[in-house]
This record gives sequence, structure tokens and C-alpha cells, in this order.
Amino acid sequence: SEFKVAILTVSDTVASGAGPDRSGPKAVSVVNSSSEKLGGARVVSTAVVPDDVNKIKNALQRWSDFDKVDLILTLGGTGFTSRDVTPEATKELIEKETPGLLYVMMQESLKVTPFAMLSRSAAGIRGSTLIINMPGNPNAVAECMEALLPALKHALKQLKGDKREKHPRHV
Amino acid sequence: SEFKVAILTVSDTVASGAGPDRSGPKAVSVVNSSSEKLGGARVVSTAVVPDDVNKIKNALQRWSDFDKVDLILTLGGTGFTSRDVTPEATKELIEKETPGLLYVMMQESLKVTPFAMLSRSAAGIRGSTLIINMPGNPNAVAECMEALLPALKHALKQLKGDKREKHPRHV
Amino acid sequence: SEFKVAILTVSDTVASGAGPDRSGPKAVSVVNSSSEKLGGARVVSTAVVPDDVNKIKNALQRWSDFDKVDLILTLGGTGFTSRDVTPEATKELIEKETPGLLYVMMQESLKVTPFAMLSRSAAGIRGSTLIINMPGNPNAVAECMEALLPALKHALKQLKGDKREKHPRHV
Ligand code: NA
Repeated sequence: SEFKVAILTVSDTVASGAGPDRSGPKAVSVVNSSSEKLGGARVVSTAVVPDDVNKIKNALQRWSDFDKVDLILTLGGTGFTSRDVTPEATKELIEKETPGLLYVMMQESLKVTPFAMLSRSAAGIRGSTLIINMPGNPNAVAECMEALLPALKHALKQLKGDKREKHPRHV
Repeated sequence: SEFKVAILTVSDTVASGAGPDRSGPKAVSVVNSSSEKLGGARVVSTAVVPDDVNKIKNALQRWSDFDKVDLILTLGGTGFTSRDVTPEATKELIEKETPGLLYVMMQESLKVTPFAMLSRSAAGIRGSTLIINMPGNPNAVAECMEALLPALKHALKQLKGDKREKHPRHV
Repeated sequence: SEFKVAILTVSDTVASGAGPDRSGPKAVSVVNSSSEKLGGARVVSTAVVPDDVNKIKNALQRWSDFDKVDLILTLGGTGFTSRDVTPEATKELIEKETPGLLYVMMQESLKVTPFAMLSRSAAGIRGSTLIINMPGNPNAVAECMEALLPALKHALKQLKGDKREKHPRHV
């Protein structure tokens, strides 16, 4: 496979063992079934952390700086409660924002439910790794991936330095 | 009522006495008529300040840190003139951004007028207070509230720590 | 003409002489043909710089602080490759963000191609100069300008301090 993907479940409940991780396995299956459209993508790591800024940052940093994965999806921790800090942790690490990815995830999610407006997801680039916050709800993960699929392969190719992908229209 | 709301009119004209406050009373009436959909909301404070970063910040800080209101709506000061600084004052105070609220306000406002693209509104969370910039135009206040209503009650419940609201779909 | 416009082509290829500047001349022609809808706009400067943060910043700063142009359009450097840094250079210089302009450019560009989600464009105000990142693709420049035209004249008038433009609806 061309692209390495890592998936981080962010949840106090799952991390403490008080509940099962439903989002993580769902995200793995969404990536696997989208692999071809993503230009060949494979989940190389998964992890669970509580809703803690430093623990989220440590996982993101390890996967981007050391493991050099191409894409990290975080799941959960994007809401309005005091424990929801995934976007804040993500924004401390990304070097370049990718607002268009957030736009299309919001646009498509709002077609499913108005509660999508409560997502505070961030997304951006660190080194050559793309980090995207997704909701914790398993179905929402599939919907967000669906929104990104038409251009995500090109994003990953650009990040990997594929010159042929350097100038797609509109960028 | 469950939720305390404060409304800040930001306007040199109104603050100096050179013109009446049309947005403030309109916003009070919009909140009152939306009270049930908001899960029980009541306007506990209103104030008028000029287009001055420090005076805006002082009002926002007092209401969030001391009066612990649940929701602050600011009115006006979001345009392109040199005096428009409400978003800048707001961004200095919020600890977490809430971009989805801005998305739906922009989406709905653009259906009414293309001038909506000139809104530079910010929105976010400070402590357990949600702060949302709205336009100064009285009709626009009603339209923006309309856009937020389908999810605003859930936002406020999450902020207040209501566990049952912790994981609505898509967050 | 009332408004002075400057156009900055950001491209390693063009700056090194390895390829022609197709975006710059297209943007000039788009501004000229939109001049009336823009309230009288004239391109007073054009330049080409490589994808280098400091060189981009120098051009933007000279045009806004010294030449006091009303509108700067940058072309290119908004994608996902390591060389794409136009939004980062722009964000270091703007004093006020103008997210609604980005919203409408994204909304309209996505109607043309899903690759529009890969645009990382920034936009904002420095002093009385409006700076807008546009894609490098010549057709996309026309589409983005089309999206902004319904309100861009008002934006420029507000920035120039025209009091009659101070309170358009929704701002
Ligand atoms: Na939209």
C-alpha cells in the first residue's frame, strides 16, 4: 500500500475500560473499504487515549514525527463539554491548516443532522502527515470519509511530494 | 429558566447616544421567543459598549468569569471598517473555537443576502460560557438565531455538564 | 479609478523562468472586466515571487504599508505540497480575518470541482488593504472573483472609510 494511516480513539470512557471502542474499529473498516479510492491505504497503527491534551499530542507527534504515517484520523473529543479538547491538541501541533477539508465535512454532515454544527473539528498538516479530527460517532466517521474521498488521494500524493499532483485545478 | 443569556450591543453610535439601540431589544425578543427551543433561556443582562477592544473584552469577561452566564450574544462590529473589532476582542478571550456555529450562520445568512460574506463573526467557549458574534442588523440577528436553534440547546447543555448530552451524533 | 489592485503570482516555476505566468495575466484581465462591478478598480502592480514565506511577505507588506493598495490578490501556493506556503505568509501579516470571503470562494469552487477542498486559502485585512489568496489555476481565479463580486465593492468601500457603506445588512 502507498499510504500509511493511523487511527486515534480519544475517549475517557474507552481509555478507562468503562466502555467498548466502537469508533476505532469502524474507522479501520472505513479506511480499508476506501483503500482503492485513497490510492492504496493501510491502517498501520491504532491507539486509544483519554480526553487529555498532552496524551493526544504525544500520540499525534509520535505518529507524524517518528512513524511518518501519511494520515492520522482522530475520533471523538470535538464537542462542547469541558473534556472535549481534541481540536485544541491538534491545533497545537499542525503547521498548516486545511480549512477546505473541514468545510466539506461540515457541509456533508449537516445534511445528515443539524447537530453536526457542534463539531469543532480541526485539520492540518504536520511535516508530511495530514491530521484530521473526526467525530466519535461511528456512522459520522463513514460520512466524513465519504465527504473527503473525492480529493483525499490527491491531498496525500501532494504531501508525499508526487510532482504530477502538484497543480490540480483550484489549488 | 435553565440558561442565562447576556446581550452586548457593540456600537459607537449607540454608546455615544447619537442613535437608538435597535439590535439589543430585537435580540432580547428573539431569545425570549426562542426560549422553549433553547431549553429555557432568559436574558439576565444587556449592555452597550463602543467599538473598542478593551471595552468589549471587559464586558465579555465579566459576564463569563463572574456572572457565569451560559450564552453571550454580541451585536455588531463584525464588518470591514477600521472600527469593527468585535471578532478580534472575542478571539482574544475564547479558549475553544466553535467553527460549526459560524458555518451555519454564514450558510443561512448567504441565503438572505450576499453581503453576509462580509461578516467576520467569531464564536467560541470561555469556561462554560458560549460567546457568539452576531451582525448588528436586527433582522440578521433573528436569521442567525434561526440557524443555530436546531442545536443550540444541546450546545448549552454540554457546556453545563449535562452528561446525557455528552455524545450527540456527529460530535 | 477608485480602487488600486495589486496581483502577486506565487510560483517557483514562474519565478525561476522555467514556465510562463498564466495566472497573473488572467487575474489582471478578470479585474479589468470586473472593474465596474468593483466600483472602479485598476491593477496598479503585478509581481512574481517564488514559494518563499519571506518573499511573499515582503511583497504583501510593500503593497499594503507603502503603496496603500486597496486589494491584493495572491495566485497559487495554497495547496498541500511542502512548497505551498502562501496562506502561512498571509496569516502572518493580516490583522483581521475575513472568513466569509473564504466561505463563498470555497462554496462556489466546490461546485466546479471537489479538488477545491484542497485550497488552504487565507484572507484578511492589513491596515486598509484587503488581501485574498486565490488558487494558481487561471480558470479558478475567475470563479473565485465571481463568488466575491456581489459584495467585494462594499468590502473595499468599508475599508476606505466610506460612511454610507458602514452598515450593510448582516454585518
Ligand atoms: Na455551504
